[in-house]
Amino acid sequence: MIKFFEYNWQVRDEWFKWCNQLTTEDLLKDRIGGVGSILYTLFHIIDVEYSWLRAIEGKDDVVVQFDDYNSVEKLKSLSDKFRNDIVESIPTNSDENNNKLVSIPWDEDTYTKSEILHHIIAHEIHHIGQLSVWARELELSPVSASFIGRDFKSV
Amino acid sequence: MIKFFEYNWQVRDEWFKWCNQLTTEDLLKDRIGGVGSILYTLFHIIDVEYSWLRAIEGKDDVVVQFDDYNSVEKLKSLSDKFRNDIVESIPTNSDENNNKLVSIPWDEDTYTKSEILHHIIAHEIHHIGQLSVWARELELSPVSASFIGRDFKSV
Repeated sequence: MIKFFEYNWQVRDEWFKWCNQLTTEDLLKDRIGGVGSILYTLFHIIDVEYSWLRAIEGKDDVVVQFDDYNSVEKLKSLSDKFRNDIVESIPTNSDENNNKLVSIPWDEDTYTKSEILHHIIAHEIHHIGQLSVWARELELSPVSASFIGRDFKSV
Repeated sequence: MIKFFEYNWQVRDEWFKWCNQLTTEDLLKDRIGGVGSILYTLFHIIDVEYSWLRAIEGKDDVVVQFDDYNSVEKLKSLSDKFRNDIVESIPTNSDENNNKLVSIPWDEDTYTKSEILHHIIAHEIHHIGQLSVWARELELSPVSASFIGRDFKSV
């Protein structure tokens, strides 16, 4: 499971670099599909990952506002800060058979740790797929989404 | 790992149903981003999954031509046929620590089973994210990509 997180984080960092070639207008422009703009998509990915991982740890949700992180630099800092908070917790949550039920601050349902980890991983890959279409619409090459051919610490 | 395959298959089947509301022209129209049309994206996902899973089993690649499967019905049949061939093999390949090296018929490199399984999973989720943007461009709601809230046999 940790390999998917490493993959997502590596791809996300490459998208941050990719974003540096765009104007603020293009980064914030509301686009068709997904959750809106390129930057808001990255914000949403970061926010969702952090909220669910904190829920697994029994911690309160931390509410962040996009308006406070609406540049590549600020968003990359937020991503790094949150990742630093959660990176140690993921390997201990990596057992696919972990069926411990988790209560969620924003939802009355309970979910298993395993479900939540799968959800976070698929969520980011899905939204990154949307960025790749918007990149082509901007006549730019998207970041590669290939899992194979990357170096990960844990592989 | 098997849960991600079940997720991808369930989502893929929902996209097949979703496709039934489109005209052949819309299904085959070349779109910006990804690998082209909606139907070709689904064909590509099926082809890539089957090729890599056969490689893991040491079997030859089976080359399929899109022109033979360029309708929703034909493509769904291909997906079902290939899935039936491979469904039994996935659980035995589900160990994330499986570092056995696999030779690939179309590539001189070798990869671990684990890398390949991760690659197949991320590959499909990424392309499905692209379909979701094209759906909105057609002013249609995409299939939900949420992992949470689905029923899987193995969860």
